[in-house]
Amino acid sequence: MNQMTRIDPALETRMANAIRALAMDAVEAAKSGHPGAPMGMADVATVLFNRFISIDPADHRWPDRDRFVMSAGHGSMLVYAINHLLGYDDMGMDQIRGFRQLGSRTAGHPEYGHAKGIETTTGPLGQGITTAVGMALAERMANARWGDDLVDHFTYVIAGDGCLMEGISHEAIDMAGHLRLGRLLVLWDDNGITIDGSTDLSTSTDQQARFAAAGWHVAAVDGHDREAVAAAIRAARADQRPSMIACRTVIGFGAPNKQGSHDVHGAPLGAEEIAAARRVLDWPHDPFSLPADVSAAWAAIAARGAAARADWTARLDASADRAAFLAAQGAPDAAALRSAIGEYCHRLVADRPKVATRKSSEMALEVINATLPRTIGGSADLTGSNNTRSAGMQAIRPGDYAGRYVHYGIREHAMAAAMNGLALHGGFIPYGGTFLAFADYSRPAIRLGALMGVKVVHVMTHDSIGLGEDGPTHQPVEHLAALRAIPNLQVFRPADAVETAEAWEIALTSEGTPSVLALSRQNLPAVRIEDDGTNRSRRGAYVLRETPVERDLTLIATGSEVEIALAAADLLAGARINAAVVSAPCFELFAAQDADYRRGVLGFAPRIGIEAAIRQGWELMLRPEDGFVGMTGFGASAPAADLYRHFGITAEAAADLARDLIQGGH
Amino acid sequence: MNQMTRIDPALETRMANAIRALAMDAVEAAKSGHPGAPMGMADVATVLFNRFISIDPADHRWPDRDRFVMSAGHGSMLVYAINHLLGYDDMGMDQIRGFRQLGSRTAGHPEYGHAKGIETTTGPLGQGITTAVGMALAERMANARWGDDLVDHFTYVIAGDGCLMEGISHEAIDMAGHLRLGRLLVLWDDNGITIDGSTDLSTSTDQQARFAAAGWHVAAVDGHDREAVAAAIRAARADQRPSMIACRTVIGFGAPNKQGSHDVHGAPLGAEEIAAARRVLDWPHDPFSLPADVSAAWAAIAARGAAARADWTARLDASADRAAFLAAQGAPDAAALRSAIGEYCHRLVADRPKVATRKSSEMALEVINATLPRTIGGSADLTGSNNTRSAGMQAIRPGDYAGRYVHYGIREHAMAAAMNGLALHGGFIPYGGTFLAFADYSRPAIRLGALMGVKVVHVMTHDSIGLGEDGPTHQPVEHLAALRAIPNLQVFRPADAVETAEAWEIALTSEGTPSVLALSRQNLPAVRIEDDGTNRSRRGAYVLRETPVERDLTLIATGSEVEIALAAADLLAGARINAAVVSAPCFELFAAQDADYRRGVLGFAPRIGIEAAIRQGWELMLRPEDGFVGMTGFGASAPAADLYRHFGITAEAAADLARDLIQGGH
Repeated sequence: MNQMTRIDPALETRMANAIRALAMDAVEAAKSGHPGAPMGMADVATVLFNRFISIDPADHRWPDRDRFVMSAGHGSMLVYAINHLLGYDDMGMDQIRGFRQLGSRTAGHPEYGHAKGIETTTGPLGQGITTAVGMALAERMANARWGDDLVDHFTYVIAGDGCLMEGISHEAIDMAGHLRLGRLLVLWDDNGITIDGSTDLSTSTDQQARFAAAGWHVAAVDGHDREAVAAAIRAARADQRPSMIACRTVIGFGAPNKQGSHDVHGAPLGAEEIAAARRVLDWPHDPFSLPADVSAAWAAIAARGAAARADWTARLDASADRAAFLAAQGAPDAAALRSAIGEYCHRLVADRPKVATRKSSEMALEVINATLPRTIGGSADLTGSNNTRSAGMQAIRPGDYAGRYVHYGIREHAMAAAMNGLALHGGFIPYGGTFLAFADYSRPAIRLGALMGVKVVHVMTHDSIGLGEDGPTHQPVEHLAALRAIPNLQVFRPADAVETAEAWEIALTSEGTPSVLALSRQNLPAVRIEDDGTNRSRRGAYVLRETPVERDLTLIATGSEVEIALAAADLLAGARINAAVVSAPCFELFAAQDADYRRGVLGFAPRIGIEAAIRQGWELMLRPEDGFVGMTGFGASAPAADLYRHFGITAEAAADLARDLIQGGH
Repeated sequence: MNQMTRIDPALETRMANAIRALAMDAVEAAKSGHPGAPMGMADVATVLFNRFISIDPADHRWPDRDRFVMSAGHGSMLVYAINHLLGYDDMGMDQIRGFRQLGSRTAGHPEYGHAKGIETTTGPLGQGITTAVGMALAERMANARWGDDLVDHFTYVIAGDGCLMEGISHEAIDMAGHLRLGRLLVLWDDNGITIDGSTDLSTSTDQQARFAAAGWHVAAVDGHDREAVAAAIRAARADQRPSMIACRTVIGFGAPNKQGSHDVHGAPLGAEEIAAARRVLDWPHDPFSLPADVSAAWAAIAARGAAARADWTARLDASADRAAFLAAQGAPDAAALRSAIGEYCHRLVADRPKVATRKSSEMALEVINATLPRTIGGSADLTGSNNTRSAGMQAIRPGDYAGRYVHYGIREHAMAAAMNGLALHGGFIPYGGTFLAFADYSRPAIRLGALMGVKVVHVMTHDSIGLGEDGPTHQPVEHLAALRAIPNLQVFRPADAVETAEAWEIALTSEGTPSVLALSRQNLPAVRIEDDGTNRSRRGAYVLRETPVERDLTLIATGSEVEIALAAADLLAGARINAAVVSAPCFELFAAQDADYRRGVLGFAPRIGIEAAIRQGWELMLRPEDGFVGMTGFGASAPAADLYRHFGITAEAAADLARDLIQGGH
């Protein structure tokens, strides 16, 4: 890097003050926002960018760029100010002026996809630092695959007190320390202030000791002493462990009457205080205007990045791996995957295995992982239960990143957030397993992944009371509904091995949407016993068994309950009631079909939905007068078969309800 | 305590082996379960109970009993075995034999309410240790109110590696260390094994250093050296800080061929290994049978507890606080609360304040907190935004527990779990605030509270896009649906100050059900402008404005959108469309009404639901052909009024939709 570059201290001060001015002016114009963190961390961020970071605003997707994550997302104006100063072409002054306004790229919190220079969406605290763990892991994994010439970058994080108080930070720190992610560098904005007031109100943790306990390199500096900050970053970069630098800062630095207090955290400073700050900072420039030398100094950072990228491109062009490397950055080969899955399903239709869908998932993964080298498996310490590790998958270990399997530990939340980071980094498609009931633990990161549209697959087994004896704490009853509620998230609940493979295919080829696979613990019979030669799950729901004559009833089921629907149809056939059976592995995909298709599938006869879960979310499939066989409250601890009987989720119950419905005169 | 008691080492060994035998036999009979933790921690637990714990199985609600929390809930057989050995009358050997069977009190994980000796439901890892922080805080708070004579007990926790890897444990540890909860004692089952194998696979954290960094007293012992365990517990009890004792144990201790490996974690040992274990442990007794001297030794623990309770009862009887203390343990005075709320609502109807419902909540709390001294407020560092601190509420501080307000820090998950613990301890009704979007962070603990039926109030403000500029990360769109999906949880979304007060009244007097209050950031006009003299919200939904003649339409709205429904009805009245307006502050309560009431409220005319959230969950109110004005995806960052217009949640949009519906020929 550029440790040799001569730094002009006065100019660097003004480079930092440019961030402060843009932050306070934009917040003032918006009449809302958080000036405190950008003003407090302006010196640290300026040192980081001016002396270390290598990015090229002309190519925000350059794979070997350094990643910068503003985990304290409320300090978004720090990101926007820097990106404006660096010259990103989508971050003109109009965007700074339009901070927090409808249609601007400058949302209240940084939103991935809104502007080029935003590496990840942050705001919910602790997400950024944990996503960054995934990015830093991806960097090492890519390095292990492609070598130092092509992959050699850092992941820098600015984290606030809130990020370090949130539980997810523990999972992140524990994981990063264990995996020795030495390219991860966290700059803690140690300003001693939270919204309620002094951090003394709620915490006494010695953060340096805490990070050290997890195997991190730690240091503490005055966050306004730029040489000290630079020295600490230099030492951190040289250390083989992940690093945390406690940067003691004054929140709202430069606002003479408000700095250092929680008043400056999340509200505009006001015209008077801004005027006072301009005097204190010796910043006589108008709002939203920048002196040429400061602009030039920031532009030089971009130029340095452009040069680095040019060097890198030369290395890439000279590399034997060039084509393979570039291919790995793009979308996966959907045709190859379709071919492999199609052939595999062809065999399944012949074999008709009666296995749990978690096992079906493992079988599908044997095919998928052989076809797509970029998949990265893992589990939150339930590998043998989630069936997420296909044959020959080597574990990633501290210092050895050549493997494809991550032991995420008992850290569902970090797993989901780190997977977001793996996906955002590029070059990998992560999937990770836990029990469906523990989707609640990872929910904030699942949501953030949906908001960002990353390609991540959440493998969630033990998907109903069918898990049996573990009881109500472990039995999801509302989790399917709760996940279906999240926008831009595909929730699959496949019925057998074929549907499971189809769900995997869709998940892995859906650009811009994460997926959840809800999988059974218990064995399920094959229900897709004809070789359709096509992925029927793509339409979300389809007629699995049509009636020979006009339907008297449509039974609609998902996952483990499709078997029950088929058995109920058999029972009803005995009573001369013609019941079609619809399998509905993905409500979201079905909702996206045209009305004709949906009407064709659902029919006009009375309907019964069958799912070992609550009815909420079934309004897409059922009218109020239709029936539902499922759960109305929490589960219980007993063998699975006993529970299905106890809660009345049986073919007999469905058939009885069908007779009631039909005789009830619908 | 009984440090003076002479301990018979051989007998104490056999007391521990009784736990091991019951655990392995019960798991074997159930053909599922976790023998590893009970067998590994049997020595530690035996020392704890034999030498320290003070409980009386004859009165499991004795307020001054020690609390014991098995945070590693999969080791439930440890709890059941101990409770059987102690002689709880609902934990006979039939229950041990019936482990994990339908109808047994001995569920796969300990379920609060299933049996007397279960202090809290555990299973989802990390919940127990955090709930225990709440219990330990409640103990100190009660002690500050009633003195050492009446309140002087410990909270003991057994936690596993999983509990300490989960993020919530960081929040728990940070909070307990900060608040100096010296009566909290965590015994870590440091067996080096998780489901996937050695803990080396996923973690390297020095747990002692980690706890010490958070202000804890720490120690490490051989968990099979009972004198060392006793000495460590003695030192921990004497320390003013919370204590963590790392108990190095062999998982499945006593099973000669499987102990120390993950094979013994979560599966039956098998007949052969059990026979071998019986030999190794010198335990020649039949399955489910206990030698008399061992039973007598465990019974002596209960007798010691009974004597302690008798002493305590004598102190209580002699106390001037007797009546007040006992009253504080029972249900709150609902009549007094009704009277206070009724009088307050009377004033509101006259004043018609136009305030945010978060402010309405603060106003209601002024009345409530003056009436009910047992309420304990708090916020996850959003006090000024959640409006959870009423006048004169003093903060609880390290070493000073006389206050009524908890600065939970930026720890939504720990707040929810600790509130569960405060409620379970007894004597307090906790409420705590955060933003509704962050319900996702606390969701696992909210769910557990619903499963247990504790009286906890989750105050969740900024409940829609109405929060404005903070943008999609902070804007709940699916959270109402996701919370309504949780069984046994009351979700309130009040429309004005009267409904907010009514929601509070219901929440505080609902036994067996936690509540969520979803409250607006933005100001809302008074819509309840007549003095009904009754709590209309009790029925969940009601006709706020009826039409003079037969309804053409029913507009149903919640919270901030009731104002829009009223305005839409006004617009439609201009077009001679008679639209009734229903306010629906609580779907769960409405669902519990009889069909006649519900039909009367909803009517037979076309309906339009209005809620600035997704439609899922509205199937209770709406038929497929009815209309909905709300959200279909994530929000955006802009001033609230701009967002309402942008997403079409306006009176005009509702009126347009109404005209379409009615002219559409419904």
